[in-house]
Amino acid sequence: MTTRIKEIFQTGQPDQSVTVQGWVRTKRELKEFTFLEVNDGSSLANLQVILEPTLPDYENVLKTISTGTAIAVSGNLVPSPGKGQNIELKAAEITLYGDCPADYPLQKKRHSFEFLRTIAHLRARTNTLGAVMRVRNACATAIHTFFQEKGFIWVHTPIITANDCEGAGELFTVTSLDLKKPANFAEDFFGKRAYLTVSGQLQAEVMAMALSNVYTFGPTFRAENSNTSRHLAEFWMVEPEMAFCDLEGDQDLAEAFLKYIFKFVLENCPEDLQFFNERIDKTVLSTAENIVNSEFGRITYSEAIELLEKADRQFEFPVEWGVDLQSEHERYLAEELFKKPVIVTNYPKTIKAFYMRLDDSNKTVSAMDILAPKIGEIIGGSQREERLDVLIQRMQEQGMNPDDLWWYLELRRYGSVPHAGFGLGFERLVQFMTGMTNIRDVIPFPRTPLSADF
Amino acid sequence: MTTRIKEIFQTGQPDQSVTVQGWVRTKRELKEFTFLEVNDGSSLANLQVILEPTLPDYENVLKTISTGTAIAVSGNLVPSPGKGQNIELKAAEITLYGDCPADYPLQKKRHSFEFLRTIAHLRARTNTLGAVMRVRNACATAIHTFFQEKGFIWVHTPIITANDCEGAGELFTVTSLDLKKPANFAEDFFGKRAYLTVSGQLQAEVMAMALSNVYTFGPTFRAENSNTSRHLAEFWMVEPEMAFCDLEGDQDLAEAFLKYIFKFVLENCPEDLQFFNERIDKTVLSTAENIVNSEFGRITYSEAIELLEKADRQFEFPVEWGVDLQSEHERYLAEELFKKPVIVTNYPKTIKAFYMRLDDSNKTVSAMDILAPKIGEIIGGSQREERLDVLIQRMQEQGMNPDDLWWYLELRRYGSVPHAGFGLGFERLVQFMTGMTNIRDVIPFPRTPLSADF
Repeated sequence: MTTRIKEIFQTGQPDQSVTVQGWVRTKRELKEFTFLEVNDGSSLANLQVILEPTLPDYENVLKTISTGTAIAVSGNLVPSPGKGQNIELKAAEITLYGDCPADYPLQKKRHSFEFLRTIAHLRARTNTLGAVMRVRNACATAIHTFFQEKGFIWVHTPIITANDCEGAGELFTVTSLDLKKPANFAEDFFGKRAYLTVSGQLQAEVMAMALSNVYTFGPTFRAENSNTSRHLAEFWMVEPEMAFCDLEGDQDLAEAFLKYIFKFVLENCPEDLQFFNERIDKTVLSTAENIVNSEFGRITYSEAIELLEKADRQFEFPVEWGVDLQSEHERYLAEELFKKPVIVTNYPKTIKAFYMRLDDSNKTVSAMDILAPKIGEIIGGSQREERLDVLIQRMQEQGMNPDDLWWYLELRRYGSVPHAGFGLGFERLVQFMTGMTNIRDVIPFPRTPLSADF
Repeated sequence: MTTRIKEIFQTGQPDQSVTVQGWVRTKRELKEFTFLEVNDGSSLANLQVILEPTLPDYENVLKTISTGTAIAVSGNLVPSPGKGQNIELKAAEITLYGDCPADYPLQKKRHSFEFLRTIAHLRARTNTLGAVMRVRNACATAIHTFFQEKGFIWVHTPIITANDCEGAGELFTVTSLDLKKPANFAEDFFGKRAYLTVSGQLQAEVMAMALSNVYTFGPTFRAENSNTSRHLAEFWMVEPEMAFCDLEGDQDLAEAFLKYIFKFVLENCPEDLQFFNERIDKTVLSTAENIVNSEFGRITYSEAIELLEKADRQFEFPVEWGVDLQSEHERYLAEELFKKPVIVTNYPKTIKAFYMRLDDSNKTVSAMDILAPKIGEIIGGSQREERLDVLIQRMQEQGMNPDDLWWYLELRRYGSVPHAGFGLGFERLVQFMTGMTNIRDVIPFPRTPLSADF
């Protein structure tokens, strides 16, 4: 019976007999004995293992073990005289699973994140990427737990879609044609051109109109040729949708949601967050605590514009009512003015999507963006337009053909209700949580222009 | 403050003042008062609402309310004199959100599942599809809870892949080319031809070689032109992968996993399962209890062949050592011989994938399939080949180019370990759980040949 290393640190007692299985991170040979640092991915900290010359076949074992080797170690736990860990393992028996030749790329030294991306099949064995994967998992678990506790239903909206008008963004085509000649989509698998989804929102609205409260959590796609540290061609998105909900309820849910996730990860991954705070970004913990403990600011777009106009500085992008907020504006509001997350609502209709509910002013829509210190926009949402005639007019204003979304419009014909929802880019959340600056380092296998390796 | 109807049935007390929001399923006008059945998707059962002529604007309210109308009702709970429900709601105030014209397709009558597929944007408002969505959600939650409790990390393996050799099955191409001329994939988004994944296993192995125990739960794709009740072009799959695990550990985990899911859904969706048992398939409950309470049978493929050869019947597909088991064979073993799930292991290497571990016999591989009564194969898994030389030879035997999976092979060069995993088709599980015979009725928006609607 094997014990995970995380468990040993949590509940291991001196004299307890255990077997651990993992990979050797370092070997340090001293005159009297040898230290191994062993990691099994369950925790950031390695378990220190002591090999004494009395160990069967000591010399031979030492020769075969190096950084990267996979082993099992059985023995007794002993109190650790060193600082840091409270406990270590005195080996009585070692089993070698797989050795590791000297060309193993993860020798003990600092590697750049750029280099690690070229060995994405090995990089989760490093401290930083291992911690990212554990925090990513904790974020995902927090999301499911939050919604399930509130009675929301997880709905799997389709990845392949024939709607080319779901939202902003360039689309990938999905096809089973051989493509040796010009494509005739009438002969394609779905009988028409199909795409990868950019959002599950429209279909989530369908499910909310039957089940009241639902959420999606799945992959979405953008074929934008953006080779930046902020863009992925494939990323995961969370999109709750609530029937019988207005913009205020939407803000309440989003604020409770973010607080819950940060609290959950603070409680469940303290060691990993501490690591990020020390090694990656010294504001990781204070940012998380700020989210958990602040009451989010709430202002309208018009108020935001007024505040920006009064600001004692020049912005690169000039501010006036009607323009979209730029990153510099968002950061000024959240970081400098409010010093906490702030929700901006009721944006001009001209800069927002067709499905957002038109306000009585006829000038703004019931949209909301949550701006957070350091990261900018973390959540975007809205109350949806539930009035059939207004929705059709908004689509026409934006040059869309209402017939293309006949089923979406029918939700407004048959028992329409006020409803609202929002979207959270999952990788942005993980970046926010860990302080990692490049989005490619918070997803196991990033897909970006010219790169779909592994 | 709104109360969900499920909660009212669970904890509602007479004289309690509540507000519910939902859709009218039926209206029954009697001389003295009117009954509405209201549903909000939280439970199968409708809440009965009583409207008395003393209600403000009674006549007008009655005129505007019909099947499909969205309303809020406030009032006091009263004990129900009828059978079935213990409680009903006496309306004091009604708010109309959205009316519902007479052409609403979901009038009170039986609709065929074929017809309901043509209105997938409305069908979750029916008893059966609503129950499917709740059970589907409970299955998904059970899966996450099971793995998280055991310390597994949820890893998001990529949807877009440049590997065309991940497993069996026809591939969809993903492209951002305009396709008005023959495709030159060197100019495509990823600089080479890219596909939709058929399995996250190979990438899950990468993550298991760092984090020990991981699982995927995400969409996978097949471009097979199979227009049957068992095939989808897009479906969800669960794939755990465990380092330091052999075929026996794999079987143990798979058995515990299935038992956990069925137990969880039995406990969390008793009303929905009861409904499926009464209306869809009278063996739903007994099948679920059989899974939870039986110790699964375990036999080798060779033993299975012997048992089939001894069977007192003619099979359509003749049996001899070396052939793949057909559905009729699998059902005979599980339904008639064992009368419970049975795990068949160590299949001939010629009929299984390259990554399955070669047994010492050189004839079989450490594969396993779990066969269940009524459904056939529900889980397929294996111990993976961890020996670099054997793996390369197996790839070459199957006509594959090992260089294409250089990173997968490197997992066997650097600290290789015995490891194992399995795959579960999520929609097959939901079918199994609900008794639904067509796979298109257990996913919100099915994608099949010539159909990517909604």
